[in-house]
Amino acid sequence: MEQTSVTNIRWTLPAVCFVWQTAMIILFGVFVRYNGESDAHWAEFKMARNITSDIDNDFYFRYPSFQDVHVMIFVGFGFLMTFLKRYSFGGVGFNFLVAAFGLQWALLMQGWFHSLDYTDGMIKIGIENLINADFCVAGCLIAYGAVLGKVSPVQLMVMTLFGITLFAVEEYIISDLLHARDAGGSMVIHIFGGYYGLAISWVLYRPNLKESSQLQGSVYHSDVFAMIGTLFLWMFWPSFNSATCDHGDGQHRAAINTYLSLAATVLTTFAISSLSQKHGKLDMVHIQNSTLAGGVAVGTAAEFMLMPYGSLIVGFCCGLLSTLGYLYITPFMEKKLKIQDTCGIHNLHAMPGVIGGIVGAITAAAATESVYGKEGLVNTFDFTNEFKNRTPAVQGGYQAAAMCVAVCFGIGGGTLVGLILRMPIWGDVTDDNCFNDEFYWEVRFAQKTPSFSLSLSLSLSLSFFLCKNVQNPALIRAPYEV
Amino acid sequence: MEQTSVTNIRWTLPAVCFVWQTAMIILFGVFVRYNGESDAHWAEFKMARNITSDIDNDFYFRYPSFQDVHVMIFVGFGFLMTFLKRYSFGGVGFNFLVAAFGLQWALLMQGWFHSLDYTDGMIKIGIENLINADFCVAGCLIAYGAVLGKVSPVQLMVMTLFGITLFAVEEYIISDLLHARDAGGSMVIHIFGGYYGLAISWVLYRPNLKESSQLQGSVYHSDVFAMIGTLFLWMFWPSFNSATCDHGDGQHRAAINTYLSLAATVLTTFAISSLSQKHGKLDMVHIQNSTLAGGVAVGTAAEFMLMPYGSLIVGFCCGLLSTLGYLYITPFMEKKLKIQDTCGIHNLHAMPGVIGGIVGAITAAAATESVYGKEGLVNTFDFTNEFKNRTPAVQGGYQAAAMCVAVCFGIGGGTLVGLILRMPIWGDVTDDNCFNDEFYWEVRFAQKTPSFSLSLSLSLSLSFFLCKNVQNPALIRAPYEV
Amino acid sequence: MEQTSVTNIRWTLPAVCFVWQTAMIILFGVFVRYNGESDAHWAEFKMARNITSDIDNDFYFRYPSFQDVHVMIFVGFGFLMTFLKRYSFGGVGFNFLVAAFGLQWALLMQGWFHSLDYTDGMIKIGIENLINADFCVAGCLIAYGAVLGKVSPVQLMVMTLFGITLFAVEEYIISDLLHARDAGGSMVIHIFGGYYGLAISWVLYRPNLKESSQLQGSVYHSDVFAMIGTLFLWMFWPSFNSATCDHGDGQHRAAINTYLSLAATVLTTFAISSLSQKHGKLDMVHIQNSTLAGGVAVGTAAEFMLMPYGSLIVGFCCGLLSTLGYLYITPFMEKKLKIQDTCGIHNLHAMPGVIGGIVGAITAAAATESVYGKEGLVNTFDFTNEFKNRTPAVQGGYQAAAMCVAVCFGIGGGTLVGLILRMPIWGDVTDDNCFNDEFYWEVRFAQKTPSFSLSLSLSLSLSFFLCKNVQNPALIRAPYEV
Repeated sequence: MEQTSVTNIRWTLPAVCFVWQTAMIILFGVFVRYNGESDAHWAEFKMARNITSDIDNDFYFRYPSFQDVHVMIFVGFGFLMTFLKRYSFGGVGFNFLVAAFGLQWALLMQGWFHSLDYTDGMIKIGIENLINADFCVAGCLIAYGAVLGKVSPVQLMVMTLFGITLFAVEEYIISDLLHARDAGGSMVIHIFGGYYGLAISWVLYRPNLKESSQLQGSVYHSDVFAMIGTLFLWMFWPSFNSATCDHGDGQHRAAINTYLSLAATVLTTFAISSLSQKHGKLDMVHIQNSTLAGGVAVGTAAEFMLMPYGSLIVGFCCGLLSTLGYLYITPFMEKKLKIQDTCGIHNLHAMPGVIGGIVGAITAAAATESVYGKEGLVNTFDFTNEFKNRTPAVQGGYQAAAMCVAVCFGIGGGTLVGLILRMPIWGDVTDDNCFNDEFYWEVRFAQKTPSFSLSLSLSLSLSFFLCKNVQNPALIRAPYEV
Repeated sequence: MEQTSVTNIRWTLPAVCFVWQTAMIILFGVFVRYNGESDAHWAEFKMARNITSDIDNDFYFRYPSFQDVHVMIFVGFGFLMTFLKRYSFGGVGFNFLVAAFGLQWALLMQGWFHSLDYTDGMIKIGIENLINADFCVAGCLIAYGAVLGKVSPVQLMVMTLFGITLFAVEEYIISDLLHARDAGGSMVIHIFGGYYGLAISWVLYRPNLKESSQLQGSVYHSDVFAMIGTLFLWMFWPSFNSATCDHGDGQHRAAINTYLSLAATVLTTFAISSLSQKHGKLDMVHIQNSTLAGGVAVGTAAEFMLMPYGSLIVGFCCGLLSTLGYLYITPFMEKKLKIQDTCGIHNLHAMPGVIGGIVGAITAAAATESVYGKEGLVNTFDFTNEFKNRTPAVQGGYQAAAMCVAVCFGIGGGTLVGLILRMPIWGDVTDDNCFNDEFYWEVRFAQKTPSFSLSLSLSLSLSFFLCKNVQNPALIRAPYEV
Repeated sequence: MEQTSVTNIRWTLPAVCFVWQTAMIILFGVFVRYNGESDAHWAEFKMARNITSDIDNDFYFRYPSFQDVHVMIFVGFGFLMTFLKRYSFGGVGFNFLVAAFGLQWALLMQGWFHSLDYTDGMIKIGIENLINADFCVAGCLIAYGAVLGKVSPVQLMVMTLFGITLFAVEEYIISDLLHARDAGGSMVIHIFGGYYGLAISWVLYRPNLKESSQLQGSVYHSDVFAMIGTLFLWMFWPSFNSATCDHGDGQHRAAINTYLSLAATVLTTFAISSLSQKHGKLDMVHIQNSTLAGGVAVGTAAEFMLMPYGSLIVGFCCGLLSTLGYLYITPFMEKKLKIQDTCGIHNLHAMPGVIGGIVGAITAAAATESVYGKEGLVNTFDFTNEFKNRTPAVQGGYQAAAMCVAVCFGIGGGTLVGLILRMPIWGDVTDDNCFNDEFYWEVRFAQKTPSFSLSLSLSLSLSFFLCKNVQNPALIRAPYEV
C-alpha cells in the first residue's frame, strides 16, 4: 500500500509541534508561576494561614485523584481507542500527542479565567490546575472518538487547539457566570466534547467510508486491548468525578455516587447487549463503551446528596439507553443524519452527559436544608459572596441553562472547526484508506520482498509452505489460534 | 461453530440482570444512606468530634488504597483470567459483570452486619464499605477461577449471589463473634473463596473435559495479557492487605510486610519453575500465579509485628509450595479427586490462605507487650470492650477457629451452590465446548463465506495465495511472528 | 529449535534464587526492623513528638507515590521491554524477577547507609525505604534495557547484585558526602543505570548479533503492549520525581515540573520522528521511548524552583535530543563503539540524565533567597547542620561533581561486572539465538508434530488447507489481520 503524497505530514506535523511548543514556552515564561502551595515560600504561606501540618497542602487532598485522572486520559482513552484492528497505533499514539499538546494550552486558558493573580498578573498553578487541564483535554479526546481513523494528526492538533479554547470559555460561562456546579463535568466535558466531535464529524462527512469497512472493526486481540482502556476508565471514574470536589465530604460522596452508578450501568449494559442478539451473545462494543455511561451521567450531581439509590437509578438508565444507542441511534445517525461516529461517542458521552445535566438540575432544584444541613447546603452549592441569596430552585434553573450552553458550544464550535478542517491542506486520507495505521506510522508486520522473484520462487515456495504446514498443523488454523 | 439452543442466554441473563438491579435500587432506597464522613452534614460531624482539618476524613486515609484494590478486582483478576487462548473475553468480561453485580449485594449484606445505624435502621456507607465490598467480591472472583471457561454467565451470577451471602455471614462470625483479626483476608477471602470454588467445581465435574483440551491453554499473546493481571495484583497487594487496617502504623506495617513477602515469593517461584523442567525453562503458568501466593499468605498477619524477616519467610515458603502445587497437586486433584481447577486457585488462594491462617494464629499467640507496646497490643488486636481481657494466647486459638469456619463455609457452601448450578437451566456449554468465547460473545476473527463458491474459487485462491506468500514471506512463518 | 545444553539454567537459576533468598532472610533477621512510624509503638512515638493525628504518619505523605513508582518498576519497565516480537516473556518476566530480587538487597544496602539506628545497630524501615529500594532497582532495570535479549537470567541476577551494591555506594557519596540533591535521580539512577548497562553491553559485545536480526524487532501487537509500559512510566513519572521530596511544597512542585516537562517532550518527539522519515511517518520506537526523556532530565531539578517554563524548556530539548539519539547515536555506537543497546537506553536514560545533572547544577547555582524565600532555600537544599554555611553557588559545584561520580560508577562498575559476566558459566545464548524466548521459557505457539507423517499427509493437508482458505478468506491475509 503505497503512500500518496496527500498524507505526507513530514512538514506540517513537525511545524505545528515546534511552533506550538515554542509558543507555550514563551507564554509560560511570561504568565505562569507556582501557586502558594507549590512555591518554595510555602513555609511562609503556612504560617500566614495558620496551617499546622504539611499534610494540609492541597497536594495531599488531590494528588491521588489527579494520578487516577491522568491514567484515564492517557491509558483509559488511549487504549479504549485501540479496538480497531489496524488503527491501534493511531488510537493510543495520537491520543498521547493530542493530550500532551492540549494540556499545556489548557493550563494557560483555564489559568487566565480561574487562577490569575491580579496582584502580579501571573497565573498561579497547583495540583488543581493540573487536574483541570486533564479534564479540559478529556473534552477533546472525546471528540477524537467521533473522528477516529478518519483525520490526520495535524487535523487533530487543530481540533484540539480550538477545542481547548472553546472549552475554557464555555467552562468560564458555566462555572463562573452561571455559577452552575459540575463536579465531574457531565456538561462541561461530556456534552461539550460529545457534540463538538459529532458536529466536526458531520461537517467532515465521508460519503464513501464503506470502502474502508474492511478495516472498521476489531479483531480478537484488539478487543482485549480496548478492555484495558475500558477498565481503567471505569475503575478510576470515582476519582474523576471527585477530583475537584470540596475537601472532606464532597470528595467522599462523589466517589461513592460514581462507584454505585457505574456498577448499575454494567448490569443493564450486559442485559441489553444480550437481549439484542439472536442467541443472546454479548457484543464487546457495548461492554467496552456503555458500561461507562453511568460515570458520565452522575458527573454533575456527584457531589450532591443524590443518595446511593439515586446513583443506582442513574446508572441503570444510562446502561440501558447507551446500549440502545449503539443498537439503534448510531446506525440512524450515520444513515439519516450523515454523522459518522467511529467510537459511538453519542452513546457514551453526549447522551449520558445530557442525562447528567438533567439529573443535576433536578437534584439541585430539589435540595433542602434538612437533607444537606445549613452549612452543607452552602458548601455544596457554594452559595457565598454574590450568590449567597441564591435558592436551590434558582440553582436548578441555572444548571439547566448551563446544559444548553454546553450543547451550543459543542455544536456551534464543532461546526466552525469542522469547516476549517475541510481545507485540503491537512493531510487526511481518502475515504477508502481510513482506519489504517500505515499512512502515518511505520508498521512492521511483514517484510515485503520485491515481486520480481515471483516466478522463480513459486515452486520453491509451494513445497516449502506445504512442508511447513504438515509439520506445523497450527498454521492451518492460524486465525483461530491467534 | 453453530450455537446450540442450550447456551442461549438471551432471556435468562437479561432477566437476572434486570430483576437484580431493580431489587438493588429498592433495597438501597430503603436501607442505604451516607455515613457521617460522606454526608453533607460533615461540617457538624467535624465540630461534634473536634476534628480540625478535612484531611482527617477517613476518605484520605483509605481512598488511595481503595483505588488500588479496585484495580486488583477489575484489571488484576480480570486480566489474570485472559490467559486462555479463546476465552479472554469471558475472562475479563464476566469478571467485570460478576464484580459489578456482587459489590452492590455486598454493600447491603456487609452493611446489615457491620454498618447498621440502630438509631434509624439505615446502613451508613463510606469509603471503608466500598473497600469491603470489593473484598467480598474478590472471594467470588477467586471461585470463578476454578470454573473459568466451564460455566455460563448466568451460573456465575447465581454463584456470586450465594457467594456474597455466605461471605458476609462467614465474615461476621469470624470478625465479630470470634473477634479474629484478618486484615488482608487470608481466611475470610482466600480460604473461603478458594474452597467455595473448588467445591463447586467438584460438584460440576465434567468427565469429558479433555475434549476441550485443544482450547485449554494459552498462546503467546494471551500469556502477555495475563501478565498485566498478575503484575497489577502483585503491585497493589500491599494496598489490599493494608486498606482496612488501623490508621497510622497499622496500614504502614501491613504494606511493608506484604511488599516483602511478595518479593520473596517471586524468587522461589522462579526457582521451582525452572527446577521442574528438563531444560530449566520457566513456565508462565507459575510466574503468573504462584508469585502472588505470598500476598495471600501474609494477609492475616499483615498488621501484626511479623517482622520483615518473618514476611520473607512466609513468602519464601509460599512461592515454593504454590509452584509445587501447580506441578503435583493440581494434576492429582483433577485425576483422583475429580476437581477441575482451571486457574489453579487451590495453589494460589486456598493453600496459601491456610498458611496465612496458621501464620496469623501463631503470630497472634506469640504476641507480647514488649514487642507491641502496651497500647500497641490493644490497638492491633482490638482488645477493647468485651474483649479487653483476652490474651494473645487465647486470640491465637480464636484465629485458628476462624480458619476452620472459613474452610467449612467454603466447602459446605460450595457443595450446596454446586448442586443448584447442576440444574439444567443455566445455559452452560457441553464438555467439548468449554473454554470457547464463541458461545457467549460475538467474536470477530474471521468472516466466514459460504462454501458454495468452493470449486469456483479454488484455482483462483490457490494462485492468489501463492503469490501472496511469495511476496510476503512473513506468512510462511506466521505462527512464529504473531 | 532444540535447546542446547549451554542455555540450561536448571541448576544455576534455582541455586542463585535459593541461596540468595535464604541469605536475605538471615540478614533481614539480624538487621531489619520497623521504624517508628510503622512499629506498633507508634502511639508512644506520636506522643513523644507531639503528633496529633494519625494522618501525619509519613505513610500518608508517600504511599500514593510509592504505589505509582511500584507500577513504573514492574509494569512500566516490564511492558516497555515487551516490544520485541519473540522476547515479551523475557522482557516482562525477567524484569519481574530482577526487580523482586534487587529490592531486598537494596533495602539492606541503602539501609546500612541511610537508615541505621546507631542505638541498636538495626536498620529501621518505613515507606520511604520501600520507595528508595524501588529507585535502586530502577537503576538495574535501566541497565537491563541495554542487554535485553542477549543475557541469561542468571547473568541478570549477577548484574543486579553488583548493580545494587554499586548504586548504594554511589548514592551515599552523592547524597551524603557531596550533599547533592537529586530528587528524581537523574544522576543517581539514570546516569548510573544508563552507563552501567552500556558498559556491560560493550564488554559483552556480540560480533555476530545480526544473525539474530530477524527477531530483533517488533510486530504490531508487541508495539501496543510496549505502549502500556510507556504510558505508565509517562503518567506516573511525576510521582517518581516527587516521591521522596520534602513534604508539602517540595512534592507538589516536583510533580508540577515533571508533568510539564513530559508534556513538552511528547511534542518534540513526535516532531523529530515525523521529520526523520521520507513520508513523515511516525516510528513507534521513538514514541515508546523518547517521550519519556523529559521525566529523566527534570529529575534532579524537580524540587527546585525551575519554574514552569523551565520545565518546558528541559522537556523540549530532551524530546529532540533523545529522538535524534535513536536516529543517529545508537547506530553510531553500535557500528563504531561496539556498544549494542537493545532498548536505546543511551537516548532514554544516560543522555537525558546528563542533561538533568547539568540543569540541576545550573539551577542550584542560580538559586537566590528572593526566589526561594529564606526558609525555602534552606529546606530545598537542606542547608542544615554541617552544610548550613553552603551557598547555592557552591552547591552547584557539588551537583556537577555528583554527576561525574555517577558517570564513573556507571562506566567503571559496568566494565568490571561485564568482565565477570563474560565467564562462560552463566548460560547465555549464542549470537544467532538472541531475542528468543524459547531458550528460557516454555513457549506455546504451535504444537510440533513429528515429520515422519510428512509424505502421508501431504496431499491431505493440501486439500484441507485450500478448502479452509476458500471458506475462510481471512487466512489469506492473516498477517494483516493479526
